Amino acid sequence: MQSVKVAIVGLGTIGSGVARLLLQQGDRIARHAGRPVELAYVVDKDTRRERNVTLPEGLLIDDLDRVIHDPEVKAVVQVIGGVEPARSIMLRLLEGGKDIVTANKALLAECGPELFDRARQLGRSIAFEASVGGGIPIITGIGQCLSANQIESIHAILNGTSNFILTEMDQKGTEYANAVAEAQHRGYAEADPTMDVDGSDAAQKLSILAQLAFGARVNWRAIPRIGIDTVQVVDLRFARQFGYHVKLLAVAEMVPEGLELHVAPTLVRHGTPLAEVRGAYNAIRVVGDAVGKVFFHGLGAGQNPTASAVVADLIDTIVGRTAITFKNLDLWSDVREEQVSPRDPAKIPGRFYLRFHVDDCLGAMAEIAGVLGGCGISIASLIQHEAPEQGSDPKPNGGPKSNSGTVPLVIMTHNAREGDIRRAVEQIEALPFVHPGSVRLRVRD
Amino acid sequence: MQSVKVAIVGLGTIGSGVARLLLQQGDRIARHAGRPVELAYVVDKDTRRERNVTLPEGLLIDDLDRVIHDPEVKAVVQVIGGVEPARSIMLRLLEGGKDIVTANKALLAECGPELFDRARQLGRSIAFEASVGGGIPIITGIGQCLSANQIESIHAILNGTSNFILTEMDQKGTEYANAVAEAQHRGYAEADPTMDVDGSDAAQKLSILAQLAFGARVNWRAIPRIGIDTVQVVDLRFARQFGYHVKLLAVAEMVPEGLELHVAPTLVRHGTPLAEVRGAYNAIRVVGDAVGKVFFHGLGAGQNPTASAVVADLIDTIVGRTAITFKNLDLWSDVREEQVSPRDPAKIPGRFYLRFHVDDCLGAMAEIAGVLGGCGISIASLIQHEAPEQGSDPKPNGGPKSNSGTVPLVIMTHNAREGDIRRAVEQIEALPFVHPGSVRLRVRD
Repeated sequence: MQSVKVAIVGLGTIGSGVARLLLQQGDRIARHAGRPVELAYVVDKDTRRERNVTLPEGLLIDDLDRVIHDPEVKAVVQVIGGVEPARSIMLRLLEGGKDIVTANKALLAECGPELFDRARQLGRSIAFEASVGGGIPIITGIGQCLSANQIESIHAILNGTSNFILTEMDQKGTEYANAVAEAQHRGYAEADPTMDVDGSDAAQKLSILAQLAFGARVNWRAIPRIGIDTVQVVDLRFARQFGYHVKLLAVAEMVPEGLELHVAPTLVRHGTPLAEVRGAYNAIRVVGDAVGKVFFHGLGAGQNPTASAVVADLIDTIVGRTAITFKNLDLWSDVREEQVSPRDPAKIPGRFYLRFHVDDCLGAMAEIAGVLGGCGISIASLIQHEAPEQGSDPKPNGGPKSNSGTVPLVIMTHNAREGDIRRAVEQIEALPFVHPGSVRLRVRD
Repeated sequence: MQSVKVAIVGLGTIGSGVARLLLQQGDRIARHAGRPVELAYVVDKDTRRERNVTLPEGLLIDDLDRVIHDPEVKAVVQVIGGVEPARSIMLRLLEGGKDIVTANKALLAECGPELFDRARQLGRSIAFEASVGGGIPIITGIGQCLSANQIESIHAILNGTSNFILTEMDQKGTEYANAVAEAQHRGYAEADPTMDVDGSDAAQKLSILAQLAFGARVNWRAIPRIGIDTVQVVDLRFARQFGYHVKLLAVAEMVPEGLELHVAPTLVRHGTPLAEVRGAYNAIRVVGDAVGKVFFHGLGAGQNPTASAVVADLIDTIVGRTAITFKNLDLWSDVREEQVSPRDPAKIPGRFYLRFHVDDCLGAMAEIAGVLGGCGISIASLIQHEAPEQGSDPKPNGGPKSNSGTVPLVIMTHNAREGDIRRAVEQIEALPFVHPGSVRLRVRD
């Protein structure tokens, strides 16, 4: 059967992985695509840099127009990061009649509506399995396999870098800064890891999942998010004492008042699948009204897992599955009648973990409990003593500076509204015997 | 847009769930299918029995020919259990020009080659997501989403009934027979649970996954299998002491000598995702050469999860995705050049858990160690004392009959071949101080 020509635009880590898979596993890919898939062009503005893939002579070019004007190229893997020039290039490729496969979650989170509208106008498709969860098939999972369900909730670990850092801190007692350095050393974190650790990356991915599962057109910047830079080793230890691990959890959940959306370090109960996700892995727990709970777990980043998802999308695009899916999903479209609006985060109820740094004086506990009670918050359990396991660990524990005579006071609340918790914490921090630097984390049972 | 007519054949538990989903969620399904899906017929030989679904007047009929001869019916959900008459009915439907959606793993495990060949000849398709893992999208996961990978291994918990029974035994110390009764009481187990607990159901599902992932045409009866009826509460307790849970594990793994296939109660290390699968859940751990480890977890049976998978298949069939997938997967076809042949189980190496029931006499240990050494098997660790936690548990522990003066001797081996283990166990059981009823379980680290 006649072969089909494809191109890769952007020869970074992911592009190199995709090129290698296409070049080395041609037979396998031809079998699944029903015909040979010929990598005809690889486009990058830098054609000289060394990459960990060997391309045949002449394949790597810096002229995008050659791809756009070659009518035999039907599908393009566009794996340039960031918003521009990725956006303009994608629009030009769509206008040139190409179907797109991308892994760029920032671009979709930012310009999804524009790009999808344009693709629809032009009768083209955009496949984006690799944009969320790396090699985990969560886009197909929700968009195709769970299509008989109304999705009720998504609870997910979507940033492998953060999960690696939290795992290092939790298992080895490594301080935050050192754990970040280790993540950089292993290639999990960028030189500037801000987008990973402040929850932005997870919020971008969550906005894509929320669009897919709930038809919610949410700007990712509007998703309340707290990063893991607020978490200290001492909090991981107290959490363990209560029976929890701390995870950077991205949540999208339909509640009667609307759609709850947020990203925050969260105490997740020990023994539940999400709590046991270690290292650079991602995981997504989806609840559908027919299927119940379904849980996906795998490598959320990295050259090969991401290339696995990109090439699967490319095969789907070549055989025609993507065109069908794209037409029926109505992603980022205005077709849906009922629009889902995000809920006011201040009104979202839940349990909370609070840590205060207080002078070790009689009555401190009573006064703090009084403030909480005054805000309608009741205490479920409480720890007031030196940081745990201090004796058994000779290393600095990453906890608060040990002002002599001050102790951590840790409180787990019953259900409370985030707004009430914020108000209570402000009042407590104003008390004379409470030092700055209190910590507030959500709890998920 | 014009609606499409579909039919359900077989109004048992799954058929009722599918009918309810189609009737109650018409808008949702129409949105994903791109047009209204009309349930035109429900066929069952018994039209009078009460079911937990209310069908519109005249929908339920006992005459299959009306479906076969209605040219407007394009797709049929065939959810009759067992091999016959399910096989004959499926052939008649295919010959009548209908695409098929089925949940019947026994039928596919038994007659997959015949049915798929016939469907191909007739230009029709068979979708079977619900045949393995209930609501977990494992068929699409492997067949479509991981299509860029060579699958290297599958380790799976595919029988929810067995997992429920093992969980009850492990967590509550319930004896095997009582745990089976509880499973029946909750509707997880049939009146005759033989196919569930003896590993046959898991072997049928494994044969389907092996076909999908490795192109292996394996008759499920040829898959070596051991059921959970060989496991006692005392073994679960010893396993815990070594740091393991016992799971009924279905394994398909490519090794240099061929494809390893088996179903057996297996010690799985505590803290790994498979070990933490509780109750009636299923889970599948897939390793692909690009994606690495991917783990799927969800309800493996039950009316609604299974209906979720069936209706997703039905939507895929209506929109045309199934036809594409079916054509490119070459399932149960003779197209593949290299046939994968199962490996001789006697040669499969691994670690083993052995429990012997011995007279408490000096030298027993030494003599048993001698036999193992003679068969080339070395001991990794060993427990010789009364059954654990006996003092803390007033109930009978389900262990071996307590002949006065006899004790359990538990051994964990280093890597050994199954054939050598079998030979050693035979020799040990022939020793004068060893009583009948020794236990041999595989260990997976």
